[in-house]
Amino acid sequence: MQVSTLGRGSYLITDEVQGLVSTSQVQTGLCHLFLHHTSASLIICENADPDVRGDMERFMLRLVPDGDRLFTHIMEGPDDMPAHIRSLLTHTDLTVPVRNGRCALGIWQGVYLWEHRKSGHRREITVTVSGD
Amino acid sequence: MQVSTLGRGSYLITDEVQGLVSTSQVQTGLCHLFLHHTSASLIICENADPDVRGDMERFMLRLVPDGDRLFTHIMEGPDDMPAHIRSLLTHTDLTVPVRNGRCALGIWQGVYLWEHRKSGHRREITVTVSGD
Amino acid sequence: MQVSTLGRGSYLITDEVQGLVSTSQVQTGLCHLFLHHTSASLIICENADPDVRGDMERFMLRLVPDGDRLFTHIMEGPDDMPAHIRSLLTHTDLTVPVRNGRCALGIWQGVYLWEHRKSGHRREITVTVSGD
Repeated sequence: MQVSTLGRGSYLITDEVQGLVSTSQVQTGLCHLFLHHTSASLIICENADPDVRGDMERFMLRLVPDGDRLFTHIMEGPDDMPAHIRSLLTHTDLTVPVRNGRCALGIWQGVYLWEHRKSGHRREITVTVSGD
Repeated sequence: MQVSTLGRGSYLITDEVQGLVSTSQVQTGLCHLFLHHTSASLIICENADPDVRGDMERFMLRLVPDGDRLFTHIMEGPDDMPAHIRSLLTHTDLTVPVRNGRCALGIWQGVYLWEHRKSGHRREITVTVSGD
Repeated sequence: MQVSTLGRGSYLITDEVQGLVSTSQVQTGLCHLFLHHTSASLIICENADPDVRGDMERFMLRLVPDGDRLFTHIMEGPDDMPAHIRSLLTHTDLTVPVRNGRCALGIWQGVYLWEHRKSGHRREITVTVSGD
């Protein structure tokens, strides 16, 4: 699946993922998501209060500041190396159990693509559903 | 499986997980663990010296301080947003190889549920064992 | 598979992993990597500019300083506890999709073992390839 982002921020993809699990007709097994990029992440996050994702963004901005003088890899701008670090500190792949033909997420869990670059990107995710 | 926590801290679950792998009768494959919450984590950590987990806790407390003024999502108290951040920076799911009917952990590796909330919670983990 | 490290730093293992996937004859499925240690990591990282991995190392050194007085687990030296923390903040296991008999990595993605100890170690990784 592809996700077009509009720049830094988190994008809910739970419904698209549930659709792919449904199409696979797997009832019990696992759903694996893999992001083919090193400057964005896949995360499972609280899905009720948007402030959680705002706080998350602010936390990361403080932890890994754009334009930090520590960084020498600045070819694509001040958000280039921070995007790679954010990716390392979070996740490039996720696996979620499938039960009754659906990703068995907790009630407060959503699956998000987290874009770390300031400009929009087209992000590619490979989804593999296995089981019976 | 369920784990009842007594508040913030790490809880060893290796034995319960090995029991479920044993029951599955899978000899060679994978054991996947998924935590249905966004304010606790699943981790693989050094299992010999309890100081490691004490240091880990102190490190996280310094990195993501309770009651940090950065956070706006404070509905459930000063440890609410830090719990979500700790979850993001660690893991909601883990996969461990199964060999000879057991999780093939390294000798110093233990599987822990890491509770990030100060009060006790009942935490739900779905375990999926696949293979032959 | 085993990787002998020469001390702290990241070691590209993409080719060895692709070789194991090829040997497995799986065309479509998943490749799971598990590291049997708590003082090194498995990561997927930008594979073009070595500065990325230098910056990553400097970032971690600042985030989790060797010899930090916060730490009480110092039996094996000032890089002992930082290695465990670096492991927690990154990954002990990774899963990559297999397509057309190869790990379907993005063009800029490489698989690395990240050694966090200052001295060289022999690191054991279990690779499980599943699918058809």
